[in-house]
Amino acid sequence: MCGIIGITDTEEAARLAYFGLYALQHRGQESSGIVSWDEHSGIAHQHTGMGLVPEVFSEDDLRHLAGRTAIGHVRYSTAGKPLIRNAQPLLVRIKGGVQLALAHNGNLTNARELRRMLEDEGCIFQTTSDSEIFVHLIAKALQGSDIAQAIISACSRVEGAYSLIIMADGTLFAVRDPHGFHPLSIGKTGHSLLFASESCAFDLLEADYVREVRPGEMIIAGPGRHDCRSMFFAPANVPVRQCIFELVYFARPDSCIFGEDVYQCRKLMGKIMMREAMADAECVIPFPDSGVYASLGAAQESGLPYEHALIRNHYVGRTFIQPSQNMRQYSVRVKINPVRSMIRGKSLCVVDDSIVRGTTIRTRVAKLREMGAKAVHFRVSSPPVKHPCFYGIDFPSPAELIATQMNEQQIADMLGLDSLHYLSLDGLLSSVSEPDHYCTACFTGEYPTRVPASSCRHPGNILQD
Amino acid sequence: MCGIIGITDTEEAARLAYFGLYALQHRGQESSGIVSWDEHSGIAHQHTGMGLVPEVFSEDDLRHLAGRTAIGHVRYSTAGKPLIRNAQPLLVRIKGGVQLALAHNGNLTNARELRRMLEDEGCIFQTTSDSEIFVHLIAKALQGSDIAQAIISACSRVEGAYSLIIMADGTLFAVRDPHGFHPLSIGKTGHSLLFASESCAFDLLEADYVREVRPGEMIIAGPGRHDCRSMFFAPANVPVRQCIFELVYFARPDSCIFGEDVYQCRKLMGKIMMREAMADAECVIPFPDSGVYASLGAAQESGLPYEHALIRNHYVGRTFIQPSQNMRQYSVRVKINPVRSMIRGKSLCVVDDSIVRGTTIRTRVAKLREMGAKAVHFRVSSPPVKHPCFYGIDFPSPAELIATQMNEQQIADMLGLDSLHYLSLDGLLSSVSEPDHYCTACFTGEYPTRVPASSCRHPGNILQD
Amino acid sequence: MCGIIGITDTEEAARLAYFGLYALQHRGQESSGIVSWDEHSGIAHQHTGMGLVPEVFSEDDLRHLAGRTAIGHVRYSTAGKPLIRNAQPLLVRIKGGVQLALAHNGNLTNARELRRMLEDEGCIFQTTSDSEIFVHLIAKALQGSDIAQAIISACSRVEGAYSLIIMADGTLFAVRDPHGFHPLSIGKTGHSLLFASESCAFDLLEADYVREVRPGEMIIAGPGRHDCRSMFFAPANVPVRQCIFELVYFARPDSCIFGEDVYQCRKLMGKIMMREAMADAECVIPFPDSGVYASLGAAQESGLPYEHALIRNHYVGRTFIQPSQNMRQYSVRVKINPVRSMIRGKSLCVVDDSIVRGTTIRTRVAKLREMGAKAVHFRVSSPPVKHPCFYGIDFPSPAELIATQMNEQQIADMLGLDSLHYLSLDGLLSSVSEPDHYCTACFTGEYPTRVPASSCRHPGNILQD
Amino acid sequence: MCGIIGITDTEEAARLAYFGLYALQHRGQESSGIVSWDEHSGIAHQHTGMGLVPEVFSEDDLRHLAGRTAIGHVRYSTAGKPLIRNAQPLLVRIKGGVQLALAHNGNLTNARELRRMLEDEGCIFQTTSDSEIFVHLIAKALQGSDIAQAIISACSRVEGAYSLIIMADGTLFAVRDPHGFHPLSIGKTGHSLLFASESCAFDLLEADYVREVRPGEMIIAGPGRHDCRSMFFAPANVPVRQCIFELVYFARPDSCIFGEDVYQCRKLMGKIMMREAMADAECVIPFPDSGVYASLGAAQESGLPYEHALIRNHYVGRTFIQPSQNMRQYSVRVKINPVRSMIRGKSLCVVDDSIVRGTTIRTRVAKLREMGAKAVHFRVSSPPVKHPCFYGIDFPSPAELIATQMNEQQIADMLGLDSLHYLSLDGLLSSVSEPDHYCTACFTGEYPTRVPASSCRHPGNILQD
Repeated sequence: MCGIIGITDTEEAARLAYFGLYALQHRGQESSGIVSWDEHSGIAHQHTGMGLVPEVFSEDDLRHLAGRTAIGHVRYSTAGKPLIRNAQPLLVRIKGGVQLALAHNGNLTNARELRRMLEDEGCIFQTTSDSEIFVHLIAKALQGSDIAQAIISACSRVEGAYSLIIMADGTLFAVRDPHGFHPLSIGKTGHSLLFASESCAFDLLEADYVREVRPGEMIIAGPGRHDCRSMFFAPANVPVRQCIFELVYFARPDSCIFGEDVYQCRKLMGKIMMREAMADAECVIPFPDSGVYASLGAAQESGLPYEHALIRNHYVGRTFIQPSQNMRQYSVRVKINPVRSMIRGKSLCVVDDSIVRGTTIRTRVAKLREMGAKAVHFRVSSPPVKHPCFYGIDFPSPAELIATQMNEQQIADMLGLDSLHYLSLDGLLSSVSEPDHYCTACFTGEYPTRVPASSCRHPGNILQD
Repeated sequence: MCGIIGITDTEEAARLAYFGLYALQHRGQESSGIVSWDEHSGIAHQHTGMGLVPEVFSEDDLRHLAGRTAIGHVRYSTAGKPLIRNAQPLLVRIKGGVQLALAHNGNLTNARELRRMLEDEGCIFQTTSDSEIFVHLIAKALQGSDIAQAIISACSRVEGAYSLIIMADGTLFAVRDPHGFHPLSIGKTGHSLLFASESCAFDLLEADYVREVRPGEMIIAGPGRHDCRSMFFAPANVPVRQCIFELVYFARPDSCIFGEDVYQCRKLMGKIMMREAMADAECVIPFPDSGVYASLGAAQESGLPYEHALIRNHYVGRTFIQPSQNMRQYSVRVKINPVRSMIRGKSLCVVDDSIVRGTTIRTRVAKLREMGAKAVHFRVSSPPVKHPCFYGIDFPSPAELIATQMNEQQIADMLGLDSLHYLSLDGLLSSVSEPDHYCTACFTGEYPTRVPASSCRHPGNILQD
Repeated sequence: MCGIIGITDTEEAARLAYFGLYALQHRGQESSGIVSWDEHSGIAHQHTGMGLVPEVFSEDDLRHLAGRTAIGHVRYSTAGKPLIRNAQPLLVRIKGGVQLALAHNGNLTNARELRRMLEDEGCIFQTTSDSEIFVHLIAKALQGSDIAQAIISACSRVEGAYSLIIMADGTLFAVRDPHGFHPLSIGKTGHSLLFASESCAFDLLEADYVREVRPGEMIIAGPGRHDCRSMFFAPANVPVRQCIFELVYFARPDSCIFGEDVYQCRKLMGKIMMREAMADAECVIPFPDSGVYASLGAAQESGLPYEHALIRNHYVGRTFIQPSQNMRQYSVRVKINPVRSMIRGKSLCVVDDSIVRGTTIRTRVAKLREMGAKAVHFRVSSPPVKHPCFYGIDFPSPAELIATQMNEQQIADMLGLDSLHYLSLDGLLSSVSEPDHYCTACFTGEYPTRVPASSCRHPGNILQD
Repeated sequence: MCGIIGITDTEEAARLAYFGLYALQHRGQESSGIVSWDEHSGIAHQHTGMGLVPEVFSEDDLRHLAGRTAIGHVRYSTAGKPLIRNAQPLLVRIKGGVQLALAHNGNLTNARELRRMLEDEGCIFQTTSDSEIFVHLIAKALQGSDIAQAIISACSRVEGAYSLIIMADGTLFAVRDPHGFHPLSIGKTGHSLLFASESCAFDLLEADYVREVRPGEMIIAGPGRHDCRSMFFAPANVPVRQCIFELVYFARPDSCIFGEDVYQCRKLMGKIMMREAMADAECVIPFPDSGVYASLGAAQESGLPYEHALIRNHYVGRTFIQPSQNMRQYSVRVKINPVRSMIRGKSLCVVDDSIVRGTTIRTRVAKLREMGAKAVHFRVSSPPVKHPCFYGIDFPSPAELIATQMNEQQIADMLGLDSLHYLSLDGLLSSVSEPDHYCTACFTGEYPTRVPASSCRHPGNILQD
């Protein structure tokens, strides 16, 4: 997953992009980058780096990113060696000297065949990510100065998930794939148009939310004022398939995406989950921070008190210090510590949004037992994750997904639970207003597009498998 | 405020100190440091640096900190230029070649006169902090090899607040001042004894909590096993005066200090607060993270739903990037963003642990109004802060304390609130089991010791005023 | 200018390349880089950075550069913003997954037209240097797996100066342009073949010098032993035009290039120079370090004592600290300081290899006068530089070349000299064994190839003019 | 060894100190530091760091070092772990708030007993160097505001070598020990007075050399103009004993110290050396850079041509990259490479200033043999070094000194020489104008002061032995 932002026609566009990326940091912590267009010099400036937004940009870097138009990107940490080369936005110079910058959220499903084809034609790739395919397709398709047509041509050849913000010599192009897998919203403030993965970025920038870019739509926003038009490039019969996992886990609770208020949506998932399977417990405790909002719904539905009894240490960063040999299961404790008095002798209803591998939950439940919990009932606010995602969510391989390997009772036994319930797929879909507009492939295996034959570990990194 | 830790007789003592400091990071983010005693070479190794624990220590640094005994320190960021010289633990070589390391939490109230006196005797100071006074007093008092007696002699000359962990050639001395202002606990695991500001450090290290070091007590823990003794160095008639603000705000909710479970104590403050002044609201919303635990009590007492509707961005670090000129009140939004759907048209009961300057709360309340809140009732889980603290809490000067300048009604008006209530002093004291063992000087102005004549801004930094 | 190195079939090839680059550091100080081929994993590893070899590579970096084959590059600092993107060796993945690394010394004279043509075909450029043109031409020309043929095809389209070391999946290709502008030598040690810009790199690596790669020759050295063949790709009638400025100034005095011993060659230039115009002086003093070797010849020819009386401070690095306002002509003194007792009252014969702008020499001569020199006779061991170089030597623009603007007498007057003599072109050519095999365009303006119509400031950087 | 500088009454004093340290960099490369006195704020600013002057100071650092008075220090790299704590100038606050900064060149011979005594009195040491002893002695001796008297009192208690520049609240004190072991000169420019270890620093700063600080003299230079006085603090009968090794090796050839022109002095040593033992050779070749100046004298005395045939690579820094296993005697070649054509078949007279361990020379001579030298005659421009120095020159222990272990013939055999000659002590002393004013203890073992009973490895580091 990734977060992307674009902004037009404003003083210090890069500085606003910086703060917008701050609001989107939860969508990617591996690398951060901004490209600005300096309309005075006609030069696109780029700064990218490994790490969080505040680690990557200094005041000097922002000053260097001059201009009234900018786009930005934060990249999710996937397995394998993080490479600065893969940091986005990409910036290249194509035919006619056009400076093209591109920020991409999503994964292409026909990346390998496209890359092979382009390499056969003599194209040289600089990164191992599928996003670079867009750049080559656009460069090849460009005729004269019609960038919009070249982008549409490129989109007609790729398959899969892509929310894109492209900047070509100061003009922005915001594109969402025909299925609309990932969110991309439009905001405005003063004369400035903004595009961002989530609306929480607009709140930070004091911009107003306008609407989402629609599936199959391209918005073109010129560097000057009032210069904005929309076009649809996809066949009308492509079904909308938005990623429901964005609502379950990925998006920030203070965002609106896919027309849903994420906070209310998660509370409703928690409520329906408890309606489906009440827990005989004294209180509801979330796994912080992912389980908090479903817990609030669960507590309100059940009448049980909500207790914030697992304390998360927010100073824990991406440290590589190893624990000493006499510290067992250290990873359990360094991030989250239970409040002893809330656990001992109590029957607990513990809530999280999903179970992926189950290893962390197992050691945490064991810790609750060790501290004297009388009973541990576990409630999950989404169905079991059983299938890989080819559209941008970085699940482990099926062999590592606990729900692919075991049924619900086996999982409850393995985790040492007194009871376990997953929200049903119907329950999940009844928490949203347009149930048939969602991709639920990770739960059902029903993919809305062709997918690569052999399931590969990291669909986005087409060179590693 | 600061956090301190000490550990004896264990493999990789510095590594355990590192993780212990991690758990105490909320007590200080300016600098971090560890000194270890390498019993093989007879050399004390030191590593200190500006910043958070994971920023300051690399694997190489930890490897260099060899030995079975170590002490550590995290320092709070106070106003003025942070100085690496002031990072602790201090390490010096004194009479007889003894290598003395010292970690101090608290402030001395007679620091200026002691420093002047020592300088007149030819002493040379390396830091601007009052902690170095201990080192000089001990070095001067030392006769032969009786470190314990030299420490007691030093303690007899200082006044104020000090929880100390001292390491002299591998022997630890854990000392708490006669009033017992700040916490200091004893833990054990295997053959190893531990000392830490808060018990949450023991949880992380899988050690068992034993008891607190008592006011006026010194514990001596030798480098070898089973070598531990206690002595009391203070007159019996000194009253215990523990800092109640540790319970209100400073300590972690998963710690036990002063014999109290912090989580339960804060919930009880929230309950009593609501009993004193119920709010005509639809839900209880905490200011994260400081208001969370009192909010839970307030919600349970009132029957109102608890809503986690102010979203904190945990990626915001100590950045120095300035917002652009067209971003008003940026500091309000970058850290915390409200969930729009929970605010619009709602009557809210907002809870925090205290109000100091009031400026942040003012802009946040204005934001809630702007988003359409129908009513904002504010509840504070401690009495108004009106007086400076000379014992280690870094309040602003009285002129900046809102409660020194205005009465409750004026504050409510200034903040734009529909109602405002502070927990009463009696209510606060009824939330703890030994009400007469606490210092409440910041609320009452009744100081348990002599204090400096002119109130100075940063009592701990004796060179800046 | 740049320095390049390649090495086959040896343990720790990257470590040897590192030391080889050390020996070639005088050829480029802006950036350093190595690409190795790890035959076990089939992966090419790259590490490049701005700065000197020891600044760019850590032990960890070298360990990461696994494999038995490696190539390296040091890049000269040219004007304009140094870009890490331009650091070499370039590394790309082309058709069929071939990993192609390229290190280039020299400048192409038809770079602009080739780049425009390639961009029109949809090629995307990552750097602003002309070296990347080779990569695209090779990628496009590659058919099947015949890399050698693709390189020859690329060479048939470029014009200008290129000594190349290319690594394609572990096979090395060492190429020298048909005119043979810049040197490239072959060495061997054990089973290992080496290629380097200068033979001094072989001395450091304890390898034996074999011969030079010949103009228009390509050597192919496989990853396995004894696998080496040569082919000539250029028409037989292209005249050899080696850069005489390599002998005058650029190459190290302990190298053999173009069949010449650089040290002896420079001494001979100094001797001929003195034969042409003896100086009425008490001693010969070199401008360090460039004038040392001609000075030795001049002293021996004239019988005057050689005095090392201008002391160079070798600790002066690439500092950006500005002198204070009351320090005049600071740049004169910070690098070189005269020995007062050798100057005062003396008639001096000062020697350097060339005069480019004349500004530095002017202030230094003024300093000698100020210190009391009785007379300053200046001798230059090459003819006046009057024309830009399009093949890789970074002279300033003609407007800044003193010899383009003034005649010899005017220069002597402007520099404040008692006499001035430049080595004649005939004299220079009589110091080498094959006088008609050299390019002397910077002295004569007779270019051996087509050159760009408008002379541009930095021929190698095709985007800046 | 170390280099020290001080400057009064000038704009940007720290910037001038910076450039002065640049000129003194050859005297110390381990650490660099400057302390300035900001007369407006009454605050002394300090910046020190490990490494060379240009590595330690940024523009920001220099701007921070505000004020019209500054002192600086470069420290020599001695064995053992370099410690930033030991970087000078030391800066402390003593009695009455006086801010005292101190830069020291030399070693004390009674450091251990003084430190033990001071520690017994309760003094706390921050460094392991003997320089800190001065600070404590001054702090203890200070009465009222008479710093001069306190410094004299401190000097009366220490023994050994010390050239000091002390800054106390903006007043400079330049002190040279009664024997005058190490140089310290006075310069002036405009209203500004300067003090520096060597006169080459004045050349760089365009200041005029005035005279040396005399043995046993203290110069006091106030922050204002024309405020300068001299006093002698030592008994009149202490003999002058200047370090002759400063002339042999340590000082820069463009400096004047001890009334001698270093360049001429070294040439004279080379001439006398050849008079004592002519070599049957074809040319004279120096070991660069230490043997250059004696070689010039040797060549002129003998009539043999001087050849600069050993090429030093000046890019070799303090790298820690290890050579690969198949690179034998790498350290010989990485720094210095012979010019093959000058060695093969030739009889060489090789010159260096001294032989300490002999290991480097041995491998270099072997390399010359391997390259085909017909004969290698070695000439050394000083007598055999046989005794440790307690005054600041960091020789290895006697067990490692080749001349302590072997006689001249054995050394010649071991090094593989055709002939070997050391300049005689009489010859050395006849190269200076006041032969009886020098310490020659490293050659003779006749120490001008009491020395520590057991000879210790690093006399300056009183905690390591």
